[in-house]
Amino acid sequence: MKTVKYPKKEEWKELLTRPAKEKSNLNELVTEVFEAVKNHGDQAIKDYAAKFDQSSPDNLLVSTKEITAAIAQVSEELKSAIDVAINNITAFHSNQVFSEAPVETMEGVNCWRKSTAIQKVGLYVPGGTAPLFSTVLMLGIPAQLAGCSEIILCSPPDKNEELHPAILYAANKIGVTKIIKAGGIQAIAALTYGTESVPAVYKIFGPGNQFVTAAKEQSILEGIAIDMPAGPSEVLVFADHTANPEFIASDLLSQAEHGVDSQAILVCTDEEVVSATEKAIKEQLNALSRKDIATQALANSKLILTKDTDVALDLINEYAPEHFIVMCEESTETKITNSIVNAGSVFLGHYTPESAGDYASGTNHTLPTNGFAKAYSGVSLDSFTKKITFQKITKKGLQNIGPSIEVMAENELLDAHKNAVSIRLKN
Amino acid sequence: MKTVKYPKKEEWKELLTRPAKEKSNLNELVTEVFEAVKNHGDQAIKDYAAKFDQSSPDNLLVSTKEITAAIAQVSEELKSAIDVAINNITAFHSNQVFSEAPVETMEGVNCWRKSTAIQKVGLYVPGGTAPLFSTVLMLGIPAQLAGCSEIILCSPPDKNEELHPAILYAANKIGVTKIIKAGGIQAIAALTYGTESVPAVYKIFGPGNQFVTAAKEQSILEGIAIDMPAGPSEVLVFADHTANPEFIASDLLSQAEHGVDSQAILVCTDEEVVSATEKAIKEQLNALSRKDIATQALANSKLILTKDTDVALDLINEYAPEHFIVMCEESTETKITNSIVNAGSVFLGHYTPESAGDYASGTNHTLPTNGFAKAYSGVSLDSFTKKITFQKITKKGLQNIGPSIEVMAENELLDAHKNAVSIRLKN
Repeated sequence: MKTVKYPKKEEWKELLTRPAKEKSNLNELVTEVFEAVKNHGDQAIKDYAAKFDQSSPDNLLVSTKEITAAIAQVSEELKSAIDVAINNITAFHSNQVFSEAPVETMEGVNCWRKSTAIQKVGLYVPGGTAPLFSTVLMLGIPAQLAGCSEIILCSPPDKNEELHPAILYAANKIGVTKIIKAGGIQAIAALTYGTESVPAVYKIFGPGNQFVTAAKEQSILEGIAIDMPAGPSEVLVFADHTANPEFIASDLLSQAEHGVDSQAILVCTDEEVVSATEKAIKEQLNALSRKDIATQALANSKLILTKDTDVALDLINEYAPEHFIVMCEESTETKITNSIVNAGSVFLGHYTPESAGDYASGTNHTLPTNGFAKAYSGVSLDSFTKKITFQKITKKGLQNIGPSIEVMAENELLDAHKNAVSIRLKN
Repeated sequence: MKTVKYPKKEEWKELLTRPAKEKSNLNELVTEVFEAVKNHGDQAIKDYAAKFDQSSPDNLLVSTKEITAAIAQVSEELKSAIDVAINNITAFHSNQVFSEAPVETMEGVNCWRKSTAIQKVGLYVPGGTAPLFSTVLMLGIPAQLAGCSEIILCSPPDKNEELHPAILYAANKIGVTKIIKAGGIQAIAALTYGTESVPAVYKIFGPGNQFVTAAKEQSILEGIAIDMPAGPSEVLVFADHTANPEFIASDLLSQAEHGVDSQAILVCTDEEVVSATEKAIKEQLNALSRKDIATQALANSKLILTKDTDVALDLINEYAPEHFIVMCEESTETKITNSIVNAGSVFLGHYTPESAGDYASGTNHTLPTNGFAKAYSGVSLDSFTKKITFQKITKKGLQNIGPSIEVMAENELLDAHKNAVSIRLKN
């Protein structure tokens, strides 16, 4: 973990460089698996699962019996916690339902928008060491609220050919249509083309390793939409003299434990807080079960001291953090809230750790990382809907607007565009 | 133009196939140009313009003097028409400004969203036979309303090293920051990396030929967002016995004149209207200056007779038309308005031709084609903004929500996530 004091603006770019993405050349493999799944459906999913994964179940579709058994296995304590998260995520995302008044742009020319659900969506939930039931909630709840008619969840089974009970509990509770035991490139290919067990979808959501990421890029070329580009997770904490170094350290570490390519940055206007944070990190690190991962991630991390809040804000907007935690005086917090333009999700105040948003406060945890917050939003109800524009013009309205359309069409040398108006005006 | 009566559902897929996309293998060329522009900036833009385009101007940036001269050259009639369009497009897009109340998901847990402009955007306006000043309006007005601080427009100059005066008039009027004489792959590469004359941007908008499309795909891999995937333009007209075949024909032809790969489809519940439309198309076609293009496009087009509105609606939602024109009885129109889920923009009534939306009614003409309306919206104010989520939790709030977060983090085996809550609760 490197401490940098008062870096010059021309040094920011290098200072804020993200850990280099593993440039994987998976094109050939992705093309092969996509072709196989397109031509051989379920059988290809099973073949690749046997080749690459922990297990290759005969039945890809999770049965009602399996779901019932899973529900019985999840502890009451975890069920209650998941239920709290469901309530809060539902409350926050319900508030995002689209509503907009129509506009009469000229007399007789009425225009409006309507939001409709993307009918078929695919949710990918990675396997690996941890059962990511929180991702099931973050993708499934807005899909269900949007009114998507088919919500297909794919996740790779463990070596016993099973999905984690908490994943099944969460998926069942929020109304996922089908739960499929499939992972990796073959799962994304199945959602792209459809197989006997897996319906084809119009948009694919969810995190994943380099194989899943490469497969989602291939899906785009096949005409399927995806949630957003992938990248390693990151947090930036802004703190002034009022911040508690132990809190800062705990937030930086909760990012660092995600993966060796995670990045945790502190931008601080108080030198004592910087050194106290460094000390607190060392102390807290030792108690963590994922200490090794966190230690490697901290090598990518920086503690940056800046002259004042203005400089800090410039630097933060340049970095465009996925997670942005703000621990400072009230007046500074207000200033930052008003002036931040590039960030995924912002956590304000001394009692708002990132983990709140990761799990249960209600906001979505699927966020733009790797600087993509400069152009992308996180996942929301919007991500599961699209807007159709409507217009209706009266006879009188066409008399008002028609001549302008005719002139513009003529000047763009498009006769038939002009004629569609002229023929109606003559009538 | 083929007439198909009462097609069975299993025939729809083939019937509704879009003209095959030209599978261009431009990867090598795109990589070469991107590398050159990255390394040699403006000089590379000029070199490739000299090699591929009509002209290669010394000064890429359009000067104030050129803009003043252009304004003097545009006829008052066209200026007035453009001004009408600007007013209407502004009225419709101003209405899209985001506003959403905060949500207290649990006592002491406050969450909300704020919309911010994408700071730097690039607008591409194709050259070619027609001066597409309407595209300048459709991209530039929402960019300006969103509050994008840099709006960079690129368009290839003609053989006199000039851009069309109407493009300069429109761009200047709506507040484009810089107008650049550059087109093709090199223009998109310049917007991706930045050069001496062209600032790098975060998102690139606009239509283009196969070279521009391939270049925009490359930009995505470089971390730049784009408006939406490209595809040939299309219209689907729904008509019943009340529709005027001459109006239908004029709308189908205004689509057909766009390009040889355009597609125009009629879905109709009245056999006489179908045959009268076929006749009207033949009559109107002869008068068009772009008759050759329209004739070729009509080869991709279909007149489809369906039993009733329900069957028609199913078929239309399956096709997901970019432009959807509805000419029928009032009650049927209401039914369609309520039941259409997949379309880009809908034109309701006998006096609402597609050209209204193409130019001046106020809705955007940058729309999802090629079936992408199943997952994408057209361009709107949303396309030039992104939403940041915020949350602020009080001490009391963390006492309420903290235990749930701790349980979930523990079950996902993420200690440090749990600790960020525990350390605060202990405090």
